[in-house]
This record gives sequence, C-alpha cells and structure tokens, in this order.
Amino acid sequence: MIKLYWAPRTRSLRALWVLEEAGAQYERVRLDLMAGEQKSAEYRLINPMAKVPALTDGPVAVAESGAICAYVAEAYPDAGLAPPPGDPARGRYLQWLFFSPGCIEAAFLAKSANVSIRSEAAGFGEFDRVFDVLEAAVQPGPWLLGERFSAADVMIGLDLHFGIDIFKLVPTRPALRAYVDRCLARPALQRAKAIEAAGA
Amino acid sequence: MIKLYWAPRTRSLRALWVLEEAGAQYERVRLDLMAGEQKSAEYRLINPMAKVPALTDGPVAVAESGAICAYVAEAYPDAGLAPPPGDPARGRYLQWLFFSPGCIEAAFLAKSANVSIRSEAAGFGEFDRVFDVLEAAVQPGPWLLGERFSAADVMIGLDLHFGIDIFKLVPTRPALRAYVDRCLARPALQRAKAIEAAGA
Ligand SMILES: N[C@@H](CCC(=O)N[C@@H](CS)C(=O)NCC(=O)O)C(=O)O
Ligand SMILES: N[C@@H](CCC(=O)N[C@@H](CS)C(=O)NCC(=O)O)C(=O)O
Repeated sequence: MIKLYWAPRTRSLRALWVLEEAGAQYERVRLDLMAGEQKSAEYRLINPMAKVPALTDGPVAVAESGAICAYVAEAYPDAGLAPPPGDPARGRYLQWLFFSPGCIEAAFLAKSANVSIRSEAAGFGEFDRVFDVLEAAVQPGPWLLGERFSAADVMIGLDLHFGIDIFKLVPTRPALRAYVDRCLARPALQRAKAIEAAGA
Repeated sequence: MIKLYWAPRTRSLRALWVLEEAGAQYERVRLDLMAGEQKSAEYRLINPMAKVPALTDGPVAVAESGAICAYVAEAYPDAGLAPPPGDPARGRYLQWLFFSPGCIEAAFLAKSANVSIRSEAAGFGEFDRVFDVLEAAVQPGPWLLGERFSAADVMIGLDLHFGIDIFKLVPTRPALRAYVDRCLARPALQRAKAIEAAGA
C-alpha cells in the first residue's frame, strides 16, 4: 500500500493530484512542517533532503515530486498517465517531466531572485523563452501530448498555476490561462485541493 | 536509428556518455552553437528550447538531458542502466534522475548567482545539504544504487565532476571525489570525452 508523506501548501499537491488521477488507494501521512517533523531521523530514511513530498510503496521509497509523478504513472498503467516505452509519445512525455525542474523551476528561481545569467549557459535559456515554448506546446491542446492527459501535465499544470495565480511571476497569456483552467477543472485536482484544504 | 544533436563542452556529454554506456548505434549531428545552428527553425522542431542535447529515434523526439538519460536507459534494457518498473530500486533511481535538475542544478544556480533563498521554499534546501545528502548516498558505493551503475550516475556523476573540477563550486570531499573518479574511470565516459575532444 502506498504511503504519501505530505503537507498542505507545498509541492505535495503534485503527488496528491497524480495519485488521485491514478485512482490509487493510498495512505496519507501529514507532516507538521512547523514542528519540524520532516527533519526527524526516521523521515530522513525516506527522504534524506528532509522535505515533502515523499512516498513509500512496500520496499520502494521515492522523493522528488517529478520522480513521484513518474513512479505513480508507471505503477498504475491502466490509468493511462504515461505513454509506455515504445510509444512514439514517450520521448516528449519524459521531456516535459524534466522540463518542470530543469526549465520552469530554474526560471522561477532566477526571476524571483532577480538574477541574470547568460542564456547560453542557463538551462532554461531566458525566462520568456520558457513560457513561449509552453504557450506553443499547450496551444493545440487540450494537453501537452494532445488528446492524452499525462503525469507531465500534473507537473507543468501546477507550475503554471502557481506561476500565474499564486507567485504572479508569469504574465497571463490566453493559451496558458486556458490550459491552467483545463487542469483546474479536472475532478482529480479538485479532490487533491479538497484534501489539502481539509488538511488530511 | 538514434540521432544525437550535440555540441562539445555542453550538457551533451550526458547524452554521449549514456549512449556509450548503452552500447547504442547512433548518428551524431554536431551543431555549431557559435553560428547559431541551434536556433534554426528546423532544429526547433526537435527542441523548441533551441538547446543541445536533443535526440530523435524514428518518430520519437526528446530534449532535456535528464529525459534523454531516462529514454536511452529504457530503449536499451539489456545494458541494465535502469532498474525496471516493479524493481524495488526503481523509486530511488527515478529520485536521483530528478535530483540532478531539481536539487543540484538549482543549488549551482543559486550559489553562482550568490542568491539566498529560504531553505523551506528552495527545492534544494541549502547548498550544503545537497552535497551532504550526495556524500551519504555515494559512500556505500560504488554507485548511487549500490552495485548497479545506472543512468542516474550519468546525471549526478557529471554534475559532481563539473561542480568540483570545472566550476569549483563544490568543496572537495573524499567520498564525492572517489565517486567522481570511479565515474571518470568508466570506459564509456572516456569514449564520450574522446568524441568531445575530437569534436565529431
Ligand atoms: N525538489 C523537491 C522540493 C521539495 C520541497 O522543497 N518541499 C518543500 C515544500 S514545497 C518542503 O518540504 N519544505 C519544508 C522544509 O524545507 O523544511 C521536489 O520537487 O519534491
Ligand atoms: N535543461 C537543458 C539545458 C540544455 C542547455 O542549456 N544547453 C546549453 C549547453 S549546456 C546550450 O544548448 N546552449 C546554447 C544556447 O543556449 O544557445 C538540459 O538539461 O538538457
């Protein structure tokens, strides 16, 4: 049985959403971050970075929200959250999963710290380039892989939701707004948000 | 047949190394970055970010070095570069793949730009924490997953090699130095470096 270690208002929402999309049966273990429960010796065996989210599944342990999305997608193949190896869409699926930490989070970090880096060296190029590329990617829609919703939409949909609606770092663009709204309309994300709001 | 779009002295080395580990037959297409070949309309169809590396494999296209490592590992299962789904090591394998952009690259970015971020919000926590965690992870050795070398070592081995030997951002620690040296001793990495040095 999957156990998810999580806390409200964190990157745990990615894990909650993907587990809800998968239709997984899972146990939630809420950590009190203010009380420092993420720093216990016991939890560090699960995630040595002492952060949420992390997940165990019998003998398996996995931290890093991107890895959790990839793991859940392959643990529940019937939910169709990932093109399987051999499928022509597999490459783009993996690309978008890594695009989230590699390009979007890096762009947010540089922008919010007001750092300027040579675009040739920056993994994300320039801030605007990242969102130009995403705009073009979600324009045909409804999802990054076209008709198929995937775990990559969980990562990137929430990056955009946070970037536009919460951090207000990303200027609203109609195609990005429409994509985020499609994400927000998914029943599984609504369930994940309800879990977060209830805190349990 | 796999085609790798690459350039010397870039993150392309990750792709070269993993392809050499896989024993893949592949064609190399070198882009002249100074001449801006990565910005052509044709190449942007392969990688809309206009960066190297990127790879095509028949109808498949994939950019982002982490995604390329994951893709090559699963395209050549006999090379044993990834624990397959269902294997208890699968979770940690995915975790380390995402740890590279999510924690190490972010820590490098923040450190080299001299940015300070609240550790609770930073995906990587603090700079030192990232390398403490890596030190503990490679201490049993020889590889991140113990006796099994994997595509995650390609990502993290090169992050550490660059961080210690090239960017000089990471203070040398014996366990990290020894791990990087084990990586540098792999014939596949030596072949990748020879390709890079020859520029073809
Ligand atoms: N790279 C990690 C980042 C995880 C992370 O930074 N989690 C934060 C909340 S979003 C956390 O646990 N903060 C509490 C702390 O650092 O003590 C991932 O993608 O999962
Ligand atoms: N997130 C990407 C970063 C790729 C990247 O930044 N490539 C650089 C070289 S390391 C590049 O192509 N620079 C040339 C340019 O931006 O014009 C990855 O991990 O593959």
